Formats: sequence, C-alpha cells, structure tokens
Amino acid sequence: MSTLLDGKATSNQIKEELTEQVAELTSAGKRPPHLAAVLVGNDGASLTYVGSKVRSCQKIGFESTLIQLDDTITQDELLATIDKLNKDNSLDGFIVQLPLPKHINEEVVLDAINPKKDVDGFHPTNFGKMALGMETFIPATPFGIMELLKRYALDISGKHAVVIGRSHIVGRPMSILLSNKGNPGNATVTLTHSRTQNLAEITKEADIVVSALGVPNFLTADMVKEGAIIIDVGITRVADEQHPKGYVIVGDVHFEEVSKKASYITPVPGGVGPMTIAMLLQNTMLAYTRNAS
Amino acid sequence: MSTLLDGKATSNQIKEELTEQVAELTSAGKRPPHLAAVLVGNDGASLTYVGSKVRSCQKIGFESTLIQLDDTITQDELLATIDKLNKDNSLDGFIVQLPLPKHINEEVVLDAINPKKDVDGFHPTNFGKMALGMETFIPATPFGIMELLKRYALDISGKHAVVIGRSHIVGRPMSILLSNKGNPGNATVTLTHSRTQNLAEITKEADIVVSALGVPNFLTADMVKEGAIIIDVGITRVADEQHPKGYVIVGDVHFEEVSKKASYITPVPGGVGPMTIAMLLQNTMLAYTRNAS
Repeated sequence: MSTLLDGKATSNQIKEELTEQVAELTSAGKRPPHLAAVLVGNDGASLTYVGSKVRSCQKIGFESTLIQLDDTITQDELLATIDKLNKDNSLDGFIVQLPLPKHINEEVVLDAINPKKDVDGFHPTNFGKMALGMETFIPATPFGIMELLKRYALDISGKHAVVIGRSHIVGRPMSILLSNKGNPGNATVTLTHSRTQNLAEITKEADIVVSALGVPNFLTADMVKEGAIIIDVGITRVADEQHPKGYVIVGDVHFEEVSKKASYITPVPGGVGPMTIAMLLQNTMLAYTRNAS
Repeated sequence: MSTLLDGKATSNQIKEELTEQVAELTSAGKRPPHLAAVLVGNDGASLTYVGSKVRSCQKIGFESTLIQLDDTITQDELLATIDKLNKDNSLDGFIVQLPLPKHINEEVVLDAINPKKDVDGFHPTNFGKMALGMETFIPATPFGIMELLKRYALDISGKHAVVIGRSHIVGRPMSILLSNKGNPGNATVTLTHSRTQNLAEITKEADIVVSALGVPNFLTADMVKEGAIIIDVGITRVADEQHPKGYVIVGDVHFEEVSKKASYITPVPGGVGPMTIAMLLQNTMLAYTRNAS
C-alpha cells in the first residue's frame, strides 16, 4: 500500500505557520496581509472556490476583500477595477477568478494586473520568471504540488516525471518546475496532452505522474509503474444524489486500483486542492513581505 | 540516407524575403528596420557572432549599429546604455551579446531591456508570453528550428520529441514551443538534462531529437531510432591546425553515423546556426512592423 500525501494536513500546517506570522506582525503594530478576489458572474464552482479563499484568509488573520461584479460588466469596466486594485496600497495581492465571461479577453485582463500583486502568478512577466528559474509568484496549484513533494522529502532529481495536460494553470508550469534546477526539481519531464499518442506507454515508464486532465478515474493501475509517485490534480464534480451537496468530487486517478501500486499518492479530495489555497495565502504573505521591504 | 535540413539555403531564402520587404519599405519612402548589438569585452566567439549579425543586417538592407564596450564597464554604465537604446526611436530592436563579464548580473541587464525591443526574446515578459502561447519575440535559435520544421513541412503533432539540455536560450524554449499548440507544435516533449538518468533509452524512443548540449559527437547512432528527425544545435570549436581558422565547428551529433538512420538531419555547420541569424533579422522586422502600427 502506498503512503498518502496528505494535502489537508500539510495545508493546515502551512496555515498555522502563516497564522503565527500574522500574529507576530500585528503584535508588532503592523497591519496584516490583505488579499482581494475579483469574481465576475455567478458560476457555482467559481463561487465555491472564491468563498473558500476568502474564508481561509479570515481564519489565518489576513484581511480579505471580495469584489463581486455582474457578468454583464464590460472589459473596460473590469480593467478599471483592476487599475484601482493595482494602485491600492492597502492591498498586497489580488486574483481575478477564472474563467471570465466570453465577451472578456482573459489575456488582456491578466496582463493588466501589476505583476507585484499577481499572487496567482498568471501574468506573463511572472510566468516568464518562473520559466527562467527566477524568484517570482508561482501559480498556486503547481506551487502546492512542489511544496507537498518538499515537505514529504521526496527526491525527484533525475527521476522521470510525466505530466498529463498542458494547461497554463497546471500542466505547463508543473512541467517547468519539476525540471528546473532546485530541490525538489531536476526531474526529467515529459509533458503529454490531448495529441499525445500511446499515453499509457509513457505513463508506465514514469517515476512520478501528475495528472491534470479533468477526466474522472482516467488513470488506471495498468497505466502506472509499481512504486510510482502519483499526484492527482483532477477535481471533477460528478452528480451524486446520495450526497447532501448533490455531487461528489472525483479525481483523474482511479484511487482504489492505483493506490495499491503507488509508493505515494494524493487523495481527492484532501490532496492537491487544499494545498492550492494554502499556497495562494503563502504568495500573499510573500507579496506583503516584498511590499514592506 | 537522410534528407538534409539545409539551414543555409533556408536562411538565405528568409533573407531574400526580408530584402524584398526592405526594398518595398524604402521605395515607399520609409526608413529600413534598425538593429543594434551591444558587445561587452573581446571574447573571440562573441566577436564572431556579433560581427556576423551586423554583416547580415547590411546585406539585407537593415540599418545596424554595433556598440562595443570595454569589459571593465560597470553594471550601471551598461544599464545606462540600455536605457538610451530603449528610448531611441530610430531603433527597432537590440541585443546584448551573452555571456557578460562576471561582475555584471545578466538577469538584471536582460530585465532592463524594453520588451518591445527585445528581439532576442530573453526578457521575462517575452519568455512568459511564449510559454503562454501568446504573440511575442521567440528566441532566435528555437525560432529557427521551428521555422526549419515548418518550411520542410514536417508534421510533429503527437510525435515524441526529446530535447537534450535545459538552457534558457535553447532547451527550455524549445521544449515549450514543440509542445505548444500550433503547426509545427503539439508534440509530446521530454526535456532531458545533466541529471537525466538513462538518456540513451529516452532518445531511442524519440521521433525527434533536439540536441543542445555542446559536447562534440555526443549523439551516436545507437542512441537514435530509425527514421528519427535529428536537430543539432551544438556548435563547439574544436582545434584543428589543418584548418585556416585553426579550429572547426563540431556539432553534438555524430553526423556520419546518425545520418544513416535519420529521416531528416541538420548539418553542422549550415544547419541551425544560419537559421539563428535569419530569425534575429525576422524578429527585428517584426519589431519594426509593430513599431510602425
């Protein structure tokens, strides 16, 4: 049986560390870090994510601001809001929850965020710094996975990591971070995606698999090597009337099968998900520290 | 036997296209594109590269400026020069030839270049845009390889590409471009480097190998699959008294052996090298066009 990479416990640990840091700051007469979130429209999943981010801020003593905008807002109005947040000195960082309504160009919006406040790490300048191995804000989900590998002291140097999915939010940055110099890092990385031929043959060779596909139970036992490290980024809502919420969250990995072969594995829920929020908070603390120095 | 990917002929073709575009511009009463190169110190190879870039500009009708600085220059003095070039409206793009002397921080210098004039594509903002699949300046060597694949109409979608070397100038951007959406693009890409274990086993599975290692004749026939596409980025000077220059340029690929197995292969010299200069010129034309619009 495999060891669980417990994202929930690890993220709680990180939040405790942050809580202590906030207490030190405020007892020294300083203001706490302040994160704002911009939410456009009423998408159910987005509401849940943003709500969870705001509650996490409150729990650890960060100040937080939720800016809810109607989905009829124009791009220019959204850009004006971002401009205000860029200039607001009481604010260390902010995020614009994706996806945005179709009449708004995400590239233009993300590009308008001051890179120094871009705690999601999606601005081209921050993304480029990450790819060049420079200090920056690392997107929260890949950052959370790297932190999990680090805190479990898993050595991936020289190992073969296979990343499934090339999204800008997870797959692409993940492939870069795993292969960059550093610890954890220095892995040999294969980035696979929808056009990849013979995916199973590739994943079967992997010492580490990071699946960010969004297809429930996609990665089965026959696709992984004995002893591999398995990171499941999938969080698909599957309707389930038995469940009080009416759905359950299901990962990309067929946990029951794969956990028998893996050396380490993240559960869903309780794996990568809670780490993502913890690292957003961590990035906000980083923005605060850079602001102050 | 394999087909030669003739970088010399292809780069000449590109230069001819650029020459025609310049002629059109000047006959319409417009100024030609203008590239400047900053060279710090007297490194032999750097002098050769910069000289070759300047001569190429002259041949196709671009204006060019060579700024030679003593290697005792301070970082602040170099930054002041860059600031002047950033503000010079008669200039479309400029490059700072690397490597720089050790007392100068390359990151700081590259970061000071206005991204709109960064025709080398090394600025974090441009590098990030490339990684995010946005329009930008693509570093000349990887850009040249993509252009070569494109002009030879080689379909790499879904194929397995292995990149050897993770430098910021070649390996990292190459791994990103090959796997980005586009044509050419959509390859499954494995990025290997000094920490990679069992490299030969990985390259043997590859449909495309891009070697950017700098070790003469490193890639031997036993390391490649029958019918693979082989791209050789290595350009190592090896002493040779028989040769009038006192050295010859040797690639990473053992050409004699590997050319018997490959379907397509770049020679050294005459492969990736000349393409690099052609794409720098192409980027300068792009900067000019963006400037004008």
